[in-house]
Amino acid sequence: MDKETFRYYGHEFIDWVADYFEEVEQYPVRSPVRPGEIKAALPDRPPLAGEPMETIFEDFREVIMPGITHWQHPGWFAYFPANNSPESVLAELLTAGLGAQCMIWQTSPAATELEEVVMRWLGRMLGLPEGTSGVIQDTASTATLCALLSAREKATGFEANLTGLDRPLCVYTSEEGHSSIDKAVKIAGYGIESLRHIPTDDDFAMIPEELEKAIENDRAEGLEPACVIGTLGTTSSTAVDPLPEIGAICSRYGLWFHVDAAFGGTAALLDEKKDLLTGAEYFDSFVVNPHKWMLTNFDCSAYFVKDEEALIRTFEIHPEYLKTGLDAQVKNFRDWGIQLGRRFRALKLWFVIRSYGVEGLRDMIREHIRLASLFRQWVEEDSRFEVMAPVQFSLVCFRLKIEGADEEKLARLNAELLEKVNRSGRVFMTHTSLKGRYAIRMAIGQRATEERHVREAWDLLTQTAARLLQP
Amino acid sequence: MDKETFRYYGHEFIDWVADYFEEVEQYPVRSPVRPGEIKAALPDRPPLAGEPMETIFEDFREVIMPGITHWQHPGWFAYFPANNSPESVLAELLTAGLGAQCMIWQTSPAATELEEVVMRWLGRMLGLPEGTSGVIQDTASTATLCALLSAREKATGFEANLTGLDRPLCVYTSEEGHSSIDKAVKIAGYGIESLRHIPTDDDFAMIPEELEKAIENDRAEGLEPACVIGTLGTTSSTAVDPLPEIGAICSRYGLWFHVDAAFGGTAALLDEKKDLLTGAEYFDSFVVNPHKWMLTNFDCSAYFVKDEEALIRTFEIHPEYLKTGLDAQVKNFRDWGIQLGRRFRALKLWFVIRSYGVEGLRDMIREHIRLASLFRQWVEEDSRFEVMAPVQFSLVCFRLKIEGADEEKLARLNAELLEKVNRSGRVFMTHTSLKGRYAIRMAIGQRATEERHVREAWDLLTQTAARLLQP
Repeated sequence: MDKETFRYYGHEFIDWVADYFEEVEQYPVRSPVRPGEIKAALPDRPPLAGEPMETIFEDFREVIMPGITHWQHPGWFAYFPANNSPESVLAELLTAGLGAQCMIWQTSPAATELEEVVMRWLGRMLGLPEGTSGVIQDTASTATLCALLSAREKATGFEANLTGLDRPLCVYTSEEGHSSIDKAVKIAGYGIESLRHIPTDDDFAMIPEELEKAIENDRAEGLEPACVIGTLGTTSSTAVDPLPEIGAICSRYGLWFHVDAAFGGTAALLDEKKDLLTGAEYFDSFVVNPHKWMLTNFDCSAYFVKDEEALIRTFEIHPEYLKTGLDAQVKNFRDWGIQLGRRFRALKLWFVIRSYGVEGLRDMIREHIRLASLFRQWVEEDSRFEVMAPVQFSLVCFRLKIEGADEEKLARLNAELLEKVNRSGRVFMTHTSLKGRYAIRMAIGQRATEERHVREAWDLLTQTAARLLQP
Repeated sequence: MDKETFRYYGHEFIDWVADYFEEVEQYPVRSPVRPGEIKAALPDRPPLAGEPMETIFEDFREVIMPGITHWQHPGWFAYFPANNSPESVLAELLTAGLGAQCMIWQTSPAATELEEVVMRWLGRMLGLPEGTSGVIQDTASTATLCALLSAREKATGFEANLTGLDRPLCVYTSEEGHSSIDKAVKIAGYGIESLRHIPTDDDFAMIPEELEKAIENDRAEGLEPACVIGTLGTTSSTAVDPLPEIGAICSRYGLWFHVDAAFGGTAALLDEKKDLLTGAEYFDSFVVNPHKWMLTNFDCSAYFVKDEEALIRTFEIHPEYLKTGLDAQVKNFRDWGIQLGRRFRALKLWFVIRSYGVEGLRDMIREHIRLASLFRQWVEEDSRFEVMAPVQFSLVCFRLKIEGADEEKLARLNAELLEKVNRSGRVFMTHTSLKGRYAIRMAIGQRATEERHVREAWDLLTQTAARLLQP
């Protein structure tokens, strides 16, 4: 493709994205296609000769777009948000254009040093202790795996890296901990039987006394506790574990303390939410995803560690073909995570923080929290519905209730309500189970969501519920 | 940022990238900045108020660009290439604009189904057996880790996921195997002491008899062999292990056979190189990186498996909040790797394969192989130099020699030659060690590299060598 063709389609695509941001509201949020529909529209074999961009772009619009679920839709209330922003898309364009590989300092000094700087910015914005080191990972799944590996190595004096894990090491998280913890426990070789799911209180937060009991039990059985993962904003209900109490326990028993704040951590940008990080002096590692609630398009997961040496010692490799004369003077981020190859992800985070400023980001988060509080109020005021969990941030868990109905019936009823509302194409919500009780999750946090979208969601819910409850 | 501002800067950035592609040759390939220089030019704290894009873009050009090492420079001969292309940059722009999360089918059906389709295309293009399943990973590091985890689970009847590894399992690769294997062996809990580096022959390829001997030795000591990793194109010299022989051994002993073809695999697109995949019926898993030599900007690593159930069973998780009514009918790629969150990476691979066509990609690869063969000839014809390894693809390992000099002196001399040549800013090469002998790596494979760039590199080398050898 020559320069002029690239410019032509580049401008076309930019205009398309600009229109998309504006018109995304007109699409059904959740794609209505059926399984296999997109596959059936695509040829079975690749073309031998190249095809013109016009044809490819047309297929993108005609064949691919109907199968896209629109995460950037203001009616997005499913899972958690994964926001992009115009500024981060622009930065991603430059990153792709440069095509620089950021595995070591020498392969792109600016990428390494900008990553150091923006991660220090972000750590300060959140209120993490000075001296905390940061590195960008792709996802919280990876960050949590890194934490579990560092914990494994610290507990074994870096012997597991040499000989494998020759004895069970126990890991603790709440029964509301994210599924990536289960996955990482398996990957890192602990075995899922070494993972303890600590009971939670009525607010779905870990009960520290239960944690301590579990640790004591394991010790009494001759097992070795190694790591506790606290959650700041669980996936089901954004519950916040009592981090200072858990931290004190970890400190007392000498356990690695990792905090999964993938979604909720961003709220710590607010002065009025600074107490979220009380106990941060205990955190050995901490993950928050700017690609969720901080306008930085996926993937960008911020992983912070108290002791960077423990992280590096867990991962470092020294093949001859990667050695440079400057290794002693610089950070080589290849040794800070799983992958050798790394994209220049700091650029988009830099673009976002500078474009919005700390205050701009705070304004957005405050507004989402306000909208959630409004929605919760509506649910509370409608006697047909009930709120299912405390609203800590911008997620409201709720459901339709029926006097005397059992859990199974309530689950069926609410699943039907959810599916009908989602089929409208105007909104997309998902569900969860809270101590065995079905709940619909209204996760507010999409960049473009305004009060009218939340209102529309509520109207849809109440109208659909009225029809469902008709005798 | 409003729509018009986004359009304005979008067009600006597209034009900048278009110019960059054209002018990249004018930059020094390797950034000349000193450690700390970029950091020192950046403020220590984030701005409270947002800043205009004009300022940010200016800082990008003035502060960041001098610290970029230019992987898209036609004088790029370092490591392996990590090519982007105008077409893949355009696709990445759409991916970023859509901001769709591809963890499960429902979160973007088109992303999942396009990934299935392009991976089937690519499998066929390479000549992998029909029925092979493919998934896009971020890097070969991750793909190799997936292979080692599947191997661990297969060897233990999926017990290690439950209880951890209660006995040593042995892994085999050649002494030229990539450092990501060492890293993954540690992460997956095997312990590095369970990794055997099998001796290689004079061509740096694994000696199958030595592999078998090592397996027998381990068995004799009561240890359990689990996995062999063969390499199709080692990092140091692009050596190709004898895959059919190794495969037969794996089959005989019931071991998982993973093939790391991160760079070299792309050559299997050529009809005349189809024999690279002889023995493919033995491969349990295979990784090739379209982000290296196939014009698809980083990250895009193609991971193929013979038995997708073994992969899924290794990773699957079933939290309530991710369940959908369609799970039995669709692929949910969250269960095909480490991370839950996934970018829509299939789009750029689709754009690239369609834009270039299979023939267009073959033409590029053939040309790079031709250029390498030319360069090797020049080295061979110059008595001051020597070729250090067979040229299998487009990498030439060579060095300057001095009659009677020992290895230490030769290493010093060639490191000096390399550093002087790199300092010119016209080319960037890196080094390696081949059985203790220092070698300069001339890795030809950058999209824009033409014969004149290879010629210039050779002229620079010979002129610099002449000055170095002067008494």
